[in-house]
Amino acid sequence: MPAIDLGRLQDDLAGLAEFHDPDSPGWTRRVFSAPYIRSREWVARRMSEAGLKVTRDTAGNLVGTLAGGRGPALVTGSHTDSVAGGGRFDGPVGVLGAIEAARCIRDGGLRLRHELRVVDFLGEEPNDFGISCVGSRAVAGMLSAEHLNLGDPAGRTLAEAMASNGADPARIGEAAWTPAEVGAFVELHIEQGPVLEHAGVPLGVVSGIAGIERVLMTFTGQADHAGTMPMDARHDALCAAADAVLAVESLAMDQGHGGVGTAGRIEALPGALNVVPDHVRLWAEFRNTDVSWLEARRGRLEETVLDAARRRGVTVAIETLSRTEPIVASDSIRAAMADAIAGLGLDSMALPSGAGHDTVQMAKLGQVGMLFIPSAGGRSHCPEEWTAPEHLEAGVAALLATLLFLDAQ
Amino acid sequence: MPAIDLGRLQDDLAGLAEFHDPDSPGWTRRVFSAPYIRSREWVARRMSEAGLKVTRDTAGNLVGTLAGGRGPALVTGSHTDSVAGGGRFDGPVGVLGAIEAARCIRDGGLRLRHELRVVDFLGEEPNDFGISCVGSRAVAGMLSAEHLNLGDPAGRTLAEAMASNGADPARIGEAAWTPAEVGAFVELHIEQGPVLEHAGVPLGVVSGIAGIERVLMTFTGQADHAGTMPMDARHDALCAAADAVLAVESLAMDQGHGGVGTAGRIEALPGALNVVPDHVRLWAEFRNTDVSWLEARRGRLEETVLDAARRRGVTVAIETLSRTEPIVASDSIRAAMADAIAGLGLDSMALPSGAGHDTVQMAKLGQVGMLFIPSAGGRSHCPEEWTAPEHLEAGVAALLATLLFLDAQ
Repeated sequence: MPAIDLGRLQDDLAGLAEFHDPDSPGWTRRVFSAPYIRSREWVARRMSEAGLKVTRDTAGNLVGTLAGGRGPALVTGSHTDSVAGGGRFDGPVGVLGAIEAARCIRDGGLRLRHELRVVDFLGEEPNDFGISCVGSRAVAGMLSAEHLNLGDPAGRTLAEAMASNGADPARIGEAAWTPAEVGAFVELHIEQGPVLEHAGVPLGVVSGIAGIERVLMTFTGQADHAGTMPMDARHDALCAAADAVLAVESLAMDQGHGGVGTAGRIEALPGALNVVPDHVRLWAEFRNTDVSWLEARRGRLEETVLDAARRRGVTVAIETLSRTEPIVASDSIRAAMADAIAGLGLDSMALPSGAGHDTVQMAKLGQVGMLFIPSAGGRSHCPEEWTAPEHLEAGVAALLATLLFLDAQ
Repeated sequence: MPAIDLGRLQDDLAGLAEFHDPDSPGWTRRVFSAPYIRSREWVARRMSEAGLKVTRDTAGNLVGTLAGGRGPALVTGSHTDSVAGGGRFDGPVGVLGAIEAARCIRDGGLRLRHELRVVDFLGEEPNDFGISCVGSRAVAGMLSAEHLNLGDPAGRTLAEAMASNGADPARIGEAAWTPAEVGAFVELHIEQGPVLEHAGVPLGVVSGIAGIERVLMTFTGQADHAGTMPMDARHDALCAAADAVLAVESLAMDQGHGGVGTAGRIEALPGALNVVPDHVRLWAEFRNTDVSWLEARRGRLEETVLDAARRRGVTVAIETLSRTEPIVASDSIRAAMADAIAGLGLDSMALPSGAGHDTVQMAKLGQVGMLFIPSAGGRSHCPEEWTAPEHLEAGVAALLATLLFLDAQ
């Protein structure tokens, strides 16, 4: 197998990082921003120089194709946009790593039996329109007219933003692929958690991607004078919400299963030091690859929170904001990854992904798999995001070997 | 004793309520606002018509004096400003009730042995300068140059606001009284809590006014991806703060003693649904008339919160924002009140005040006492604030009888 050129890969990562918003912290390159738009011309040139035929579809995805035999294509890729204040690795590793893999195929004079597609999906991160995975949704045929009409705080629609970025939302259907086109989709990504680092293992074979259950809990009590209302006559909405924060935590830890639960946002009104809070909104989520675990958490959260609120004479409404089904990675792709990694003489371990990825959308078209490489300290979505050079090299080598394994099947 | 004219009192309460901010909910009449400034000319006329000689001191207090014999004066009064979205009784009852008592003295042809002073103290409620009891502080000689330099969000100083309201902050010292001038200070006020209503008793003799210990707790954890960071590797600042909210509640309920504890305000950052909160600020207070209870709560809060935070690898800083000493009502004034109320054939009970009042400041000059009348449902600082006519009548009758009792001593 042709060797990865780590220096060339690192130069590309540094080159892409040059495109960032100078007025934001970290390496901010949000979808539809000026630095993002400029950066993708640069990415298209990298694809072209790697020998890929570059097209931009009607959703604004960059697709680099290496012609191969007949039948379904091998597809790999990720995204190059970032969150505000984000880092240099979440997304770019999977796009620039795939380009490096394509260069290795070219440099090694290899001819694949299948067509290879390298995709830089438009806007994977959450954006001002309240939607993520814009480009991969379109490829999966799942970007609806309703999505295109979503507005940002400035009143612009997603369709308008996409059109100004070179896409053609009126012809969004043309960006959709058919299942018959896709033999396998493989995404290389940083873990964004500490599991690989703690285990001292350079490569993770993702077993599945967690489903997400998001809820908004609204607590209504009574706003009384904090000095004059006795403790036993209060209806304190913040105390009821505090019980719910702790219930989310303990329900997520209960029975292991690798699930997580987070109360990430809280608003308490009236917010005066001398008034008992009467109106609290608390947003929370559970994530797990196991649907039955998610359903049981939701049920037990409702029981626990309603009971704690009732004891305080506080009412609570629990609303489901969104429910995303878990994705199971393909056994045959996982097996190809394990064989490929063993062939490289490297260690790997199976682990679930708690974060969503473009892979979730691509799973609607066919078999998918993900490779993880370690994140230092588990940090992500921050300027400190870091993956060591040897792990970058191992990740791209594993990606290349996996593609060659799948191509040989 | 001359009888209270309930209709005249109710007319005055309705007349004062006409002065309110039309753009705010309830009966909003905040200090320094246009409706407040206009309302006090109206209050000055009511004083004048009651036979009181009206002066406005350099702090902007309205003082109506009924001449009497030599020696220290009997003083009564309260305030006529409201909180935003407030009601019609918190404050006005003590000012208009005192004016009604003065009218009864005049109508009954009574001559007091002591001078009587009826005071409408400037701005008792919290204001945009972050200070309450502005006028009574000045009378007590406690309004400092530092206070006068406090700024509001618009950049105006308290001194500037006072000057534009007819006060003369450069000569603030002239508003201060000496202890020798004050024989007793008595304030009639609504309870702002549910104790009298629950007990079915029309009058409360206040035993003391709670001290207040206010703290700001700042929790610092680590902002991680809510999908990828395992539960046992998190440093969730909101979970640590939730423990603190519940600790404030349970410490206040512990061992009775009539104390209260409230976590009234919380801010959690970054406030995203998919990020573990790393920075939470939580404001809380304890109130009780018992200093040792307050000190013990503060100590136990610190222990409990630090321990709960440490278990999560979250750091916490606890800062004292303010510490107000409790006030003990004068035994002799309480005895005069009890005798006066018994003479009226009414029931009363002793109870502490959890709210602060102008009485706290006046206690620096001499003996003080407070009379409470019931608040329907314990509600206050809201448009629903309500005290029944028979309770208004009982309160003013008890105030008048108490003043006559004290005058006779």
